[in-house]
Amino acid sequence: MSKGRIFSGMQPSGKFHLGNYLGALENWVKLQYDYDCVFSIVDWHALTSMYEDTSKIPENIHEMALDWLSGGLDPERNIIFVQSHVKEHAELHLLLSMMTPLSWLERVPSYKDKLQQLGAIGKEINTYGFLGYPELQTADIILYKADTVPVGEDQIPHVELAREIVRRFNGFYGPVFPEPQVRLSQAAVLPGIDGRKMSKSYGNEIPYAAPPEELKARVRMMVTDPQRVKKTDPGDPAVCTVYTFHKLFNKEVIEDIGGKCRTACIGCVDCKKLLAERMSASLADIHARRATLEANPGRVKEILAFGAERARKVAAATMEEVRAAMRL
Amino acid sequence: MSKGRIFSGMQPSGKFHLGNYLGALENWVKLQYDYDCVFSIVDWHALTSMYEDTSKIPENIHEMALDWLSGGLDPERNIIFVQSHVKEHAELHLLLSMMTPLSWLERVPSYKDKLQQLGAIGKEINTYGFLGYPELQTADIILYKADTVPVGEDQIPHVELAREIVRRFNGFYGPVFPEPQVRLSQAAVLPGIDGRKMSKSYGNEIPYAAPPEELKARVRMMVTDPQRVKKTDPGDPAVCTVYTFHKLFNKEVIEDIGGKCRTACIGCVDCKKLLAERMSASLADIHARRATLEANPGRVKEILAFGAERARKVAAATMEEVRAAMRL
Repeated sequence: MSKGRIFSGMQPSGKFHLGNYLGALENWVKLQYDYDCVFSIVDWHALTSMYEDTSKIPENIHEMALDWLSGGLDPERNIIFVQSHVKEHAELHLLLSMMTPLSWLERVPSYKDKLQQLGAIGKEINTYGFLGYPELQTADIILYKADTVPVGEDQIPHVELAREIVRRFNGFYGPVFPEPQVRLSQAAVLPGIDGRKMSKSYGNEIPYAAPPEELKARVRMMVTDPQRVKKTDPGDPAVCTVYTFHKLFNKEVIEDIGGKCRTACIGCVDCKKLLAERMSASLADIHARRATLEANPGRVKEILAFGAERARKVAAATMEEVRAAMRL
Repeated sequence: MSKGRIFSGMQPSGKFHLGNYLGALENWVKLQYDYDCVFSIVDWHALTSMYEDTSKIPENIHEMALDWLSGGLDPERNIIFVQSHVKEHAELHLLLSMMTPLSWLERVPSYKDKLQQLGAIGKEINTYGFLGYPELQTADIILYKADTVPVGEDQIPHVELAREIVRRFNGFYGPVFPEPQVRLSQAAVLPGIDGRKMSKSYGNEIPYAAPPEELKARVRMMVTDPQRVKKTDPGDPAVCTVYTFHKLFNKEVIEDIGGKCRTACIGCVDCKKLLAERMSASLADIHARRATLEANPGRVKEILAFGAERARKVAAATMEEVRAAMRL
């Protein structure tokens, strides 16, 4: 039996790397067996930072759908769709906007943070829509009457705002929406090949869809214990990026690898080879599913159309209730 | 041949009085012969000030449609519809919000004015939606590619904002929208029966749909020249509310009436009787049309459904263009 309904979304704002996904997508793949899940590629949200040049959005949506599906999200079990295909998100967002105090949005911690952060790199995102970002998120969530939202620590204030808006709405118009609860996901923070946080802006990322050859090349570039100069020097796994990846992809033999490193029984080249093989094996299913989907691009379109149809059905029923409650 | 396309709207925020209409509606009735007109009962806008209690909105919409139709707006010649029936307004509003700098909305003069004005009477309208009011107005106008917007002086900044938003949109995504132009309407300011500006909050209004008996009663209560105590005293039409109404409803004989007042040849009671008769005659067609419509409430619903269908057709075509331009 389902534990409840989950809504979650990701912005199609560019190609995703392994680090983006190891947290969220792996988590979603697990959640889909326990919850009734709605997963959305939130392209309207992507406009907040990409409005000046939207030319990449169609491709990004397609890539994201490929990533999700090859990563193991089941389009029959879950509702998987593109936000802009379901206009009810815009309608509910507008209605909520009329009763949401401006100060509630202004005090969302991520608001000023992100303005500064993006302002510092010359990106002007101080738009009306950017201020309303958490309002649109609220509409996304409650349109499906989701009671559970899997988020990282930084997104907790957004779900709290959604709860406040729900209480206000229900107070004015009657009990239409459940208050969504946070389900905290402990996303493993994956380092990039240089040991810093994996990020495209550092150029240290491993693409999610990297085929074995590319994977091998990226792993070969990973930084290891800088104190270990020769193969016969003992290494310290605690400061080795390769070892961090072994912990994620090679759990079963992690003790063994650590021991061999510390006793100089395995060299970095071999250790990296081992990791690359293990990663390729672990991502093999994903690559195979991706290859099948890439061979048939129409299939992804079909899946998204099917998802939008199902999403619209739920959204339309909610909006009927909303309009009746608000006497519109 | 049409001189262009007009969009205009009114909020269904309560029963309208003669003063509300003498400016706008009379003007619209004239415009409908020269322009291709889209007139909308903007119920989503009404939420900015009525979100806490929306129970009156359905009735207000019906009353406004009755007023418009009985006032002479032709539902075949014009597109007459209720804003919330055409969801594209919400979608375009959301898309525009993503590229509209917050400061553009914050500096609209009416924004702070109205906040203060309503704050003073204890109404809390400082919501996200209220800040976005002119953004939604922009969406309303350009969704129909209206090139002309009939407004009073106070609304000019809103149309200027719409032009700015259009330029920005066209700059980013290509020339989709025309820049709407202001068509200034000189609305006659109608005094209430006590000589102050007609306003429901003063209780000095004359209902638009007032039948002859009510009209007569309201005219009887109008203030006249306070210096004219007896019928034989000469009066000063310049300070007489009845005379102001004669100027609007009795143009042909206005010199004659003024002269008779100044020479005490007509008493205030007779002068008021004359006005009430003239007003009843002038509003007789309106009352007759209203009576017909009131006898058949289903007809108003039909007319609004027909208007919404026509509006949706135009709106859907515009949104196709918008989505293609924005690559969504």
